This record gives sequence, C-alpha cells and structure tokens, in this order.
Amino acid sequence: MATVTIPPSVPSPAEDCELLRKAFAGWGTNEDLIIQILAHRNSAQRKLIRQTYADIFKEDILKELDKELSNDFEVSLACTFCTSIMDLRYIDRVVLLWTMDPAERDAFLANEATKRLSASNWVLMEIACTRSSHDLFMARQAYHARYKRSVEEDVSYHTTGDFRKLLVPLLSSFRYEGEEVNMTVAKSEAKILHEKILEKAYNHEELIRILTTRSKAQLNATLNYYNNEFGNAINKDLKADPKDEYLTLLRATVKCLTCPEKYYEKVPRSAINKLGTDEWALTRVVATRAEVDMQRIKEEFQRRNSVPLDIAISRDTSGDYKKMLLALIGHGNN
Amino acid sequence: MATVTIPPSVPSPAEDCELLRKAFAGWGTNEDLIIQILAHRNSAQRKLIRQTYADIFKEDILKELDKELSNDFEVSLACTFCTSIMDLRYIDRVVLLWTMDPAERDAFLANEATKRLSASNWVLMEIACTRSSHDLFMARQAYHARYKRSVEEDVSYHTTGDFRKLLVPLLSSFRYEGEEVNMTVAKSEAKILHEKILEKAYNHEELIRILTTRSKAQLNATLNYYNNEFGNAINKDLKADPKDEYLTLLRATVKCLTCPEKYYEKVPRSAINKLGTDEWALTRVVATRAEVDMQRIKEEFQRRNSVPLDIAISRDTSGDYKKMLLALIGHGNN
Repeated sequence: MATVTIPPSVPSPAEDCELLRKAFAGWGTNEDLIIQILAHRNSAQRKLIRQTYADIFKEDILKELDKELSNDFEVSLACTFCTSIMDLRYIDRVVLLWTMDPAERDAFLANEATKRLSASNWVLMEIACTRSSHDLFMARQAYHARYKRSVEEDVSYHTTGDFRKLLVPLLSSFRYEGEEVNMTVAKSEAKILHEKILEKAYNHEELIRILTTRSKAQLNATLNYYNNEFGNAINKDLKADPKDEYLTLLRATVKCLTCPEKYYEKVPRSAINKLGTDEWALTRVVATRAEVDMQRIKEEFQRRNSVPLDIAISRDTSGDYKKMLLALIGHGNN
Repeated sequence: MATVTIPPSVPSPAEDCELLRKAFAGWGTNEDLIIQILAHRNSAQRKLIRQTYADIFKEDILKELDKELSNDFEVSLACTFCTSIMDLRYIDRVVLLWTMDPAERDAFLANEATKRLSASNWVLMEIACTRSSHDLFMARQAYHARYKRSVEEDVSYHTTGDFRKLLVPLLSSFRYEGEEVNMTVAKSEAKILHEKILEKAYNHEELIRILTTRSKAQLNATLNYYNNEFGNAINKDLKADPKDEYLTLLRATVKCLTCPEKYYEKVPRSAINKLGTDEWALTRVVATRAEVDMQRIKEEFQRRNSVPLDIAISRDTSGDYKKMLLALIGHGNN
C-alpha cells in the first residue's frame, strides 16, 4: 500500500552520498538531485544512506538539511509572499521529514506539536492513533533519545483540560493488536458510550477509557454494535456542536482508530481547499504515509473528490516541493 | 545487588532438566532437589532450562509447576490450618514465580492483581514504579502475549475513581531515565505539589501528572526542593489521614519512585509482623527482587529492624518454603 517507487537497480549508499554531498554544496542546493535520490529510496535504504554519509563526511545528513531549513525558515518569515523561497522552505521540510527514520520523525512531529508556535493536538492524536502499537512505542523511545524527556511528560505539561485527558492516555497506550473480540464487552461498552453521549459527557472517564485502551478490533466491534443498536454511527452522534474543538478532535480520534485512510483523505482535502494551501499538513501526510497506506489514501481521495490526489496537489503546489510530493505519492505509477 | 548464588560449575541445562523431571515425577514432588537447582540459577540460565525442558519433554516447566499449584491451592483452601500443605502451596508459588521470565512474572502478577479474589492496587503500583522503563515495557509486551489484552486495558476496567486515576498512567508511563534535572521545573512543581496537598486535593490532575510522567531523577530533585522549602518530606505531609487507602498508596508510590529499598524493606516487615504471616507478600518480594536489589533490601531491613532478614524469615516460615526463600536471599553468603 506504499506509493514510493524504487528503481530496479539502486546505486550503492556511498554513490548516493557522494551525489547528495554535491547537491548540498555551493550556494543553494540542487533539489532535483536530492529528490531523484531520496524520494526513491525506502526507509531501510535511507537509513543506510544516513549512516554512510556520517561515516564518510562526519556529518549527519539531517543536520545538513536542518541547516537549510532553519536558514530558509528565517528568510521565509521575513518574506512570506515570495513563492520561490516559501517553496524552498517546504521542499526542505518535506525532505527533512522524509529522510528521518519513521520513529524519529514521529518524535520530531510530536515534539513540534507541543511547542507554542506549532502546537497541534491533531498531530499528537494522529501519531497516537494511526501507528501500530510497536511503532508508537518506537517513537516514544526516539523521543527519549532526542529530547531527554518522555512524550507523555511533554504532552501532559503542555496541554490542559479535556485535551490532556484524551491525549495523554492515547499517546501512552500500548494497545493489544490481535483480532480477538469480546462481544459481551462490545455490547456493554457501546451502551456506556451511548449513555455518555446522550448526557453530553464527552469527556467522561469511561468514554475516554474505552477509546484509549481497547484494541482496534475490539473498538470496531463496539462501534459496529453502537451503530446497529442506536441507529447512528457514533461520529454522527458526536457532531452535536461542530465548532467544539474537543468534539472535533474526538471524532477524528474515532476515525483514526477505525478507518485512518478516511481521516487521511480529508487532511489534504482541507489543506488544499484552504485559502492558501496548508503545506504543513500536506507535507506531514505525504511524508508519514507514503510508505504506509498512501495507496489507499489516494483511492479514498479520488472516490471522495472525483479527482486524483496527484492532480489536486499539482494544481495547488509548485516547483521542487511539488516534484517531491508527487514523487512520494507515486505520480505516474501504474 | 542480587543475592542469588550460582555454583562455580553449573550443570548443562539438559542435566538440570533430567533432574527436575525426576523431582516432578511420582506422588508429591522432590522440593529439595527443585530448590537446589532452580534457586541457584540466574534468569538467563532458568530461561535456558525452560527451553531445554520444552525441547526434551514437550512440556512447559511452568505448566508442571502450575499443575501442582492449582492442586495444592484447592487442597489448601479446604485445609487452611494444615501447615505442611500450606507450605507446599507456598513453595510451589515461589518456585513458579521464580522460574518465570521477569517480564512474564510481572505480567502474571499484574493480571492477578486485577482479579477480584487477588485484587491489589499495591502490586500494580509496585510493578509500575520499581521496574526500569524498559522492564515495565517488557512486562506490557508479555501481558499482550499471555492475556491477549493490554495491562492498562485490564487495570482501567477493573479499577475506579482515584485508584484508576493514579494507576493507569503509572502503568502506561515510559519514563525518561537520564540523570538530567531541570531545577526551574523542580521548583515550580514542588510548589504545585505543596499547594495541592495543602488543599487536600490529593487526586488533583497536576499532582498525578507530576508523579506519573516525570523521570525519577527529576522527581527526586522536585521532592528534595519540596523538603528544603516547605520543611517536611512530602510523605509526612501526605500522612493527613493514615487510614485513607488512596493516601497510603500515594505515599507508597512516592517511596517506590524515590527509594524502593525502603518500600521493599517494609513489605516483609509487615508481612512477618502480621498475625499469621502474609506469605503472598513475602513470596512476591523475594521472587521479584532476589535478582535486582535484595542485597540493599537486606541491609535496609537489618538497619530498620535490628535483625537480619534471613533470621526474621527463618523464625516465621518453615519447611521447603523457608529453604527456598533463604536460598534466594542468599542466606549463608558472606
């Protein structure tokens, strides 16, 4: 279900590194070459490239990209209407995120999401709910290594109220991943959910317990029973107040836990439909899903929007940034 | 700091297995032989014995012990004053727990602690607070494998109110384990703790956040500042109502997070001082700490009780159970 394409014959990591080094050298970088290499290597290959780059040049390739990113970031803040520099910034960000190891990338995104200027409950929820239990744990380990704190420590410190009540257990969970389902539990917990929603007790600890600890298979059974028994999908009942930010996050949580491709179809849809594209969201979805379920996301996107995702992205982005996104979502593949 | 003694020349796992097989055979078991072997092998060696036993006899050695345990359990319920049978039961339990892989043992104990007849918030708190972050995670993995659910799922389902509020994040945490300390955070969080304690808001989410997410080094700095600034150790201030079960658990949580050997010294002290020894507690402490910090627990016990732990255990237990406990705590070592 990944969309990344790997050439039939891949150069050695050392060859890739030599070319990348050249691409970084001099005034400005050669993005074309960077895209040509990195966008067509899978995570194991990128990891090897990073190790080899460090061996040969005694430099972390991420730091090279990061340097670019921070420079551009400053420039772009001073010059928000200059498309080419904005583009440069976005291309750097997507290359940086893409080149990271997936666990490290999640740690990076989660950390960013706790910072004041880039705070996002959505990103935290996404990471907590759409990764496998093992991958979420790997991200927590990477967070320790990089930030010398735990992710739940930072998230609980930087969030408050209902958001904290929901996000901290979501991120701390280590859900069972088997397919076993207990129908007695499904029935009784569907009733609890229904009761709490009727009472508008959306932050009730029982509702949060169920969503944050049950396995995805078990939750699915519970929510199916809910739908059959009470006549509505739970997310319909959670739409009481579409402007309530916590309720919106709760609906997205349910979506991410039960049908992530539907959630992920909507992120680029909203990103593109905005007045001025939301490149951060677009970048995040492409960089984090290209090797996971981008194929299904593309299918879902086309089904829902009657236009293929690559066309939609092409219309709304430009330059190297566009090239990189299209390469990652497998534009031109059959 | 372990107290287990390994003979200078250890027989091969196959030789150990042959002897163990003989010890299990026939009417009753030969506990002496079992103790002689299993109590003098470290966890890696016991793991090998278990694998070898399964290879040779197509039988999990734990199941053999478990069979004994369940039989004896029924008998002992019917005959609570029959010391020899009670002894048999305790010896089986300690051998069973000891033979388990540490992560599996923690999963087993945690699961037992969520069951109605053996429910124990204490055991859950102990596992959550005294294991390393890595070991706690291994126990969560073992819980998946054995019970097809997650530990936080079972614990949050089986607990309520303040106990749930404290235990679920404790068990879900993956604390950072570095020594780095942020003194600004230490000061501000010591103040928060003091405020909440003054308000008797012992279940306040900020108090729980601090105790359940901060690294042990950071907590230590916070609690030292608390002690210096407010004149009392936090546990003294938490003694407002010594009969309040939640407060007692909260104090034990602080103890386990900051000086586990003091907590663990007290468990056998209370177990032995009871009218009728609390063998479950005694067994748990010996089986879970013999390979970790039993040496420090023994030192602390002697310091606090003016009697060595092995003498105290000798006076209060008998038969094979006594032999096994004494072997594990290194009785007779220098």
